[in-house]
Amino acid sequence: MDIVSNILDALRSVLTSQDAFYPLHEPLFSGNEWAYTKECIDTGWVSTAGKYVEQFEHNIAEYTGSNYAIAVVNGTSALHIALMLAGVKENDEVFVPTLTFVATSNAVTYCNAIPHFVDCEESTLGVNPTSLHDYLQKITIKKNGFSINKETGRIIRAIVPMHAFGHPLKIESICTICKEFNIKVVEDAAESLGSYVNNKHTGTLGNLGVLSFNGNKIITTGGGGVILTNDNELAQKAKHITTTSKLAHKWEYFHDEVGYNYRMPNINAALGCAQLEQLPKLLKAKRTLYMSYKKAFDKIDDVRLVSEPDGCFSNYWLQTLLLNDSISDIRDKILTVTNDSGIMTRPAWTLMHKLPPYNSAPRMNLSTAESIEKRLINIPSSPQIVL
Amino acid sequence: MDIVSNILDALRSVLTSQDAFYPLHEPLFSGNEWAYTKECIDTGWVSTAGKYVEQFEHNIAEYTGSNYAIAVVNGTSALHIALMLAGVKENDEVFVPTLTFVATSNAVTYCNAIPHFVDCEESTLGVNPTSLHDYLQKITIKKNGFSINKETGRIIRAIVPMHAFGHPLKIESICTICKEFNIKVVEDAAESLGSYVNNKHTGTLGNLGVLSFNGNKIITTGGGGVILTNDNELAQKAKHITTTSKLAHKWEYFHDEVGYNYRMPNINAALGCAQLEQLPKLLKAKRTLYMSYKKAFDKIDDVRLVSEPDGCFSNYWLQTLLLNDSISDIRDKILTVTNDSGIMTRPAWTLMHKLPPYNSAPRMNLSTAESIEKRLINIPSSPQIVL
Repeated sequence: MDIVSNILDALRSVLTSQDAFYPLHEPLFSGNEWAYTKECIDTGWVSTAGKYVEQFEHNIAEYTGSNYAIAVVNGTSALHIALMLAGVKENDEVFVPTLTFVATSNAVTYCNAIPHFVDCEESTLGVNPTSLHDYLQKITIKKNGFSINKETGRIIRAIVPMHAFGHPLKIESICTICKEFNIKVVEDAAESLGSYVNNKHTGTLGNLGVLSFNGNKIITTGGGGVILTNDNELAQKAKHITTTSKLAHKWEYFHDEVGYNYRMPNINAALGCAQLEQLPKLLKAKRTLYMSYKKAFDKIDDVRLVSEPDGCFSNYWLQTLLLNDSISDIRDKILTVTNDSGIMTRPAWTLMHKLPPYNSAPRMNLSTAESIEKRLINIPSSPQIVL
Repeated sequence: MDIVSNILDALRSVLTSQDAFYPLHEPLFSGNEWAYTKECIDTGWVSTAGKYVEQFEHNIAEYTGSNYAIAVVNGTSALHIALMLAGVKENDEVFVPTLTFVATSNAVTYCNAIPHFVDCEESTLGVNPTSLHDYLQKITIKKNGFSINKETGRIIRAIVPMHAFGHPLKIESICTICKEFNIKVVEDAAESLGSYVNNKHTGTLGNLGVLSFNGNKIITTGGGGVILTNDNELAQKAKHITTTSKLAHKWEYFHDEVGYNYRMPNINAALGCAQLEQLPKLLKAKRTLYMSYKKAFDKIDDVRLVSEPDGCFSNYWLQTLLLNDSISDIRDKILTVTNDSGIMTRPAWTLMHKLPPYNSAPRMNLSTAESIEKRLINIPSSPQIVL
């Protein structure tokens, strides 16, 4: 029996309904989603005012242990503002993992800055601290306290490490390195709500962090995101700039700087409040699903299910298979066979440095990401599979 | 009896409940809002996929008579993308009325272009075609087919005329002038859904147009906007760039240019579909309210209620009082007395050229807008007042 059949069998041992279509991830609404949303409609508070935005921010801050959480319209806008608040300016360089969703790079571009792509490591799929440190030592000089790219002369202002598919990366080591090189850390936890590193919630370890509540995420607000920070001044600034930089006044419309219309509408926050109540149940389901897949795929040589590193807790948002290098040539066959069988699977994102808008951006050696791109497959991860 | 008491009495003749608080504008949910929203939650389609976004786009296109409508996350993002599609680039100048909400100027800044402020006229509150034409003749030279600002050397690429408070401006004359000077027209109809100029819906007369469905607008999606265009190529480009510029593919994530995460979530579009069904009723109520106010304020010298110009149909989104110049010094007293009486009133926005981020931007003589700013008061305009 060939490896493709073995993989399909392993999937079928978990995804047992032959007739069902198994999407990559489906949201689950089984709590107060209706009740809270209906309250918005009944009271007329669906938009920029209403109690749910504040409540959602409070609940997210409490859940993650962040001092502050600022709700915005989506994860991309959260990244954009977090980078601005980290001080990213025109012509700065920002380290971005090449293995990420395009929003990470685009947010850098919105600041008129330049993404500079860094490699990832096989074990976590995230930025590799060792190669990051070596690279910084090689390409930068210190000037006025900043790390300058010797070749381009530009300041390397920030890095956006991203916890891919919810799997925690070595964020503590990265923060230590970045402190040494005076580089701000904007932690892209868009996919990792519920994931922890040494009991600290992802997104709370850098200078600022970002969560996403897009429809495909572990919980959803329709569209939404959050900026996390422990710094009171940054939090106030984030709220101000995401709400058109309007100064509070009974009737005057006075905006003291260029602002953004990034506030999360109340109706979306209402959905978020209800979804957040369900998060423990969803995390448990994700973990149960992981165990089932783990059991099934442990039997197959040449295939590995990505597991949380020691000391970490993964939300297992998207279950992730890694093929051994020897069978990377059958990735597309696996994708075809599974998708044709009603089992939705997906490869990694096209790496950032291969996309037209970014293919001339500066970069380190990206060989690990390039290898992973050829071997990674996400498999159905909905909580409904085990609930 | 003094003029402030007369104005309060006129308001009280329409807003008859002494104990009620009358906000400037409240949304009204009296149709299928809950049914459609509930369907999103029941089916799990609250976010980037689902039938309502497409249906909302179709219904808005049909209602406005625009060939295409592209739903986005809010009116600001619609303006941003419409300006990009009009060809606005770094260092271009864009004419912006100084009497507008700050989003109009900010959208220009997001394109790294420079707002250049223009005056409005007393009759429509919108851009004055005569002074625009004179100004263009005075300050521009033609070069390679473009109108160049002689002083700055920059291309004047576009203009964003804005139908303030829903009152239609002389958009046809402005389009004619801009054709002569090769300046693109992005029609800011954020406030004027349901307003027409010679039976053409506002937002459909320029090269591109923009609507907003913020919570304070005549209909709301919580947060939302639409880009209007009759040009198939621009419509396709708008859809592409507002949905991360991802090429359609069964599993690949390939983005061919820098895109934006501006798609309207399905749950917000569901609300919009239900609200749009109510629009005829809301427009009728707004007009009835206008008639009541008109009758009351016709009795007061020195105060005028803004009325639709000949050949135009106004949605009367925000009812607007203009004080005569002789009594402009009592504007703040009127604002104080009315707001203290539970009748919410508001002055015009602080003019754009007086805001810190824009106070050194280029401008024409803005004396009419400066005069109007001192004399304009918006009064309670909710449909509920007459329903």
